[in-house]
Amino acid sequence: MTQKDPWLLTPGPLTTSRETKDTMLHDWGSRDSSFIETNQRIRENLVKIIDGQESYVCVPLQGSGTFAVEATIGTLLPPNGKALILINGAYGKRMVKILQYLNREYDIIETPEDTPPSIDDLDKKLSQDPKITHVLAVHCETTSGILNPLNQIGKIVAKHNRRLIIDAMSAFGAIPISIKEIQFDAVMASSNKCLEGVPGVGFAIIQKQSLEQCKGNSHSLSLDLYDQWITMEANAQWRFTPPTHVIMALDAAINQFVQEGGVLARHKRYSENCKTLISGMKEMGFETLLTSQLQAPIIVTFKMPKDHKFDFPLFYESLKEKNFVIYPGKLTVAPSFRIGCIGHIGRQEIRGALTAIKDTLAEMNIGDCSPE
Amino acid sequence: MTQKDPWLLTPGPLTTSRETKDTMLHDWGSRDSSFIETNQRIRENLVKIIDGQESYVCVPLQGSGTFAVEATIGTLLPPNGKALILINGAYGKRMVKILQYLNREYDIIETPEDTPPSIDDLDKKLSQDPKITHVLAVHCETTSGILNPLNQIGKIVAKHNRRLIIDAMSAFGAIPISIKEIQFDAVMASSNKCLEGVPGVGFAIIQKQSLEQCKGNSHSLSLDLYDQWITMEANAQWRFTPPTHVIMALDAAINQFVQEGGVLARHKRYSENCKTLISGMKEMGFETLLTSQLQAPIIVTFKMPKDHKFDFPLFYESLKEKNFVIYPGKLTVAPSFRIGCIGHIGRQEIRGALTAIKDTLAEMNIGDCSPE
Repeated sequence: MTQKDPWLLTPGPLTTSRETKDTMLHDWGSRDSSFIETNQRIRENLVKIIDGQESYVCVPLQGSGTFAVEATIGTLLPPNGKALILINGAYGKRMVKILQYLNREYDIIETPEDTPPSIDDLDKKLSQDPKITHVLAVHCETTSGILNPLNQIGKIVAKHNRRLIIDAMSAFGAIPISIKEIQFDAVMASSNKCLEGVPGVGFAIIQKQSLEQCKGNSHSLSLDLYDQWITMEANAQWRFTPPTHVIMALDAAINQFVQEGGVLARHKRYSENCKTLISGMKEMGFETLLTSQLQAPIIVTFKMPKDHKFDFPLFYESLKEKNFVIYPGKLTVAPSFRIGCIGHIGRQEIRGALTAIKDTLAEMNIGDCSPE
Repeated sequence: MTQKDPWLLTPGPLTTSRETKDTMLHDWGSRDSSFIETNQRIRENLVKIIDGQESYVCVPLQGSGTFAVEATIGTLLPPNGKALILINGAYGKRMVKILQYLNREYDIIETPEDTPPSIDDLDKKLSQDPKITHVLAVHCETTSGILNPLNQIGKIVAKHNRRLIIDAMSAFGAIPISIKEIQFDAVMASSNKCLEGVPGVGFAIIQKQSLEQCKGNSHSLSLDLYDQWITMEANAQWRFTPPTHVIMALDAAINQFVQEGGVLARHKRYSENCKTLISGMKEMGFETLLTSQLQAPIIVTFKMPKDHKFDFPLFYESLKEKNFVIYPGKLTVAPSFRIGCIGHIGRQEIRGALTAIKDTLAEMNIGDCSPE
């Protein structure tokens, strides 16, 4: 208890506030009124984030973000539907895997990890293939940290009168999504990203009119968001045991999110983290994968330095000893590593990380960190 | 923080120890070595509980117990398999629902909620229907608190050379199950029952040889325990974000479980809780649904008193004000309510509950609690 926890500069689980963690020092009955009220409040607060109070509902689900993504696709895509998946990283590919398990028809538009999907290609596909009912897009692809052009995607999908489902896992709460700006059927996220809760629950915010038509679509009892919604609307309770502590922590985290000033304030803090990180890293010679226009203020991919003395496992361990946990790369286009800008951290922690990186490079006797 | 949490006399989420909850005051990177080691230790400790070190593996899964049940059935039952489900309560019925979602063949043997399945009927069904590949049984059916005759069921299933899958959700850790006594393919449970962790993760302990044959069976990416297992064996990491805090709390809870003396010690404590509860309630005139031979020391169903002045919602609220949360009934056979014996509680808390019940009855001006 005396040892200081390391700062998690990862895409989540993240560093959360003490206030959020303190919430978990209690036990709650899952059918009891105090828990039920909290659950209701969380659902209402999450819908407000997309300005959806009038026509959207929040359906939370036990498990990780992927559970919420699979559940949403399985519930919203009818058995005779066809999905078009926009891929530029691991999370787009994961949606393909889900479609394969679901045994439902799909097509893809794939671009390299540092390249947004082509809006022209999307326009063409939707013109040519009337069978496509749903387009699946990732808002910020954590694989690289790229910000995909959601509003442009949304315009094309709406023009063709198709439905849009957004995996906003690592962006929700920090990058604005509003139904006033973009038309979509559902957006999915989880407790442990930009909302700064602890992991264990995901959610989808779904257009009520769409969800009402989804009875019987789902391939799975546990992942049936229609059934989850109907039951929760009926008595405000979960169908199956909810992760009570995780949910109470999410409520505390959302309260802090609101106090901080909501999406805009969080976007500002993370953007400052991101700017501080990139400029400090560039001073050491590191290069980012993405140009600043494509970079979301969520997680930054740095190219591996070309210096042979740079040993990533050693670099990782040394930073961990200095109390900063970073993240390995996941790219196919280039060797890389990632540093996150999100969680209960500010410029002070980012500056601390930069100092730790400088010290580590000195220990490794590396002067220049420019890549190949 | 100053208010004392109520004692949860429910089937879970339960009252957990302060030590278990304190664990959650930290944040962990899910890919970091300290978390990975803990995850490994939990899996090994859970397998030991069934004496399965040699030939069984533990596959944990995000979500509630039902997620683990659905995942296990979906992974172990091949698409051309047929399940026979033994039903005497809501959790048996839930497995039927899962089979319907999976669109796989099944048959049932159903008995009333206060009656164990007939071993003769099971023997007959398995003789008559060679298509049945798997028998699904519930160890302690939380609906009533009945202890089903698992060892007898196991003998018949083994005699017919079929496979047994056990939903031991509310019994695991308090009622012995050993592969030395009974042959089975898998047993499922969750963090927040007799292991006294917090909710958010379930697990299946599966015969390795069986699991090896299950590639491609699952209907769901998130719920594919074969894929979850293969990935976890490869690098000890979870496929998708694990509920880190819940898992660290489970590790702490399992340590306390081992220190207490494992299954036998926990069985003893819960049995004493159960005995104290039933004898105290009987003194007030209450009657249990089950005879003592059928009663598991997990949760006790009491019949509603016939006195018209007994108002259950009022009774519930009054007990909650006195810091004890009980559980409504779920029976179809008779009006009832339930009081749990499990969690981080002992005879002192049960005696406290009995006093609170006595006081509440006095307030309600009820002298005799005997049922219709």
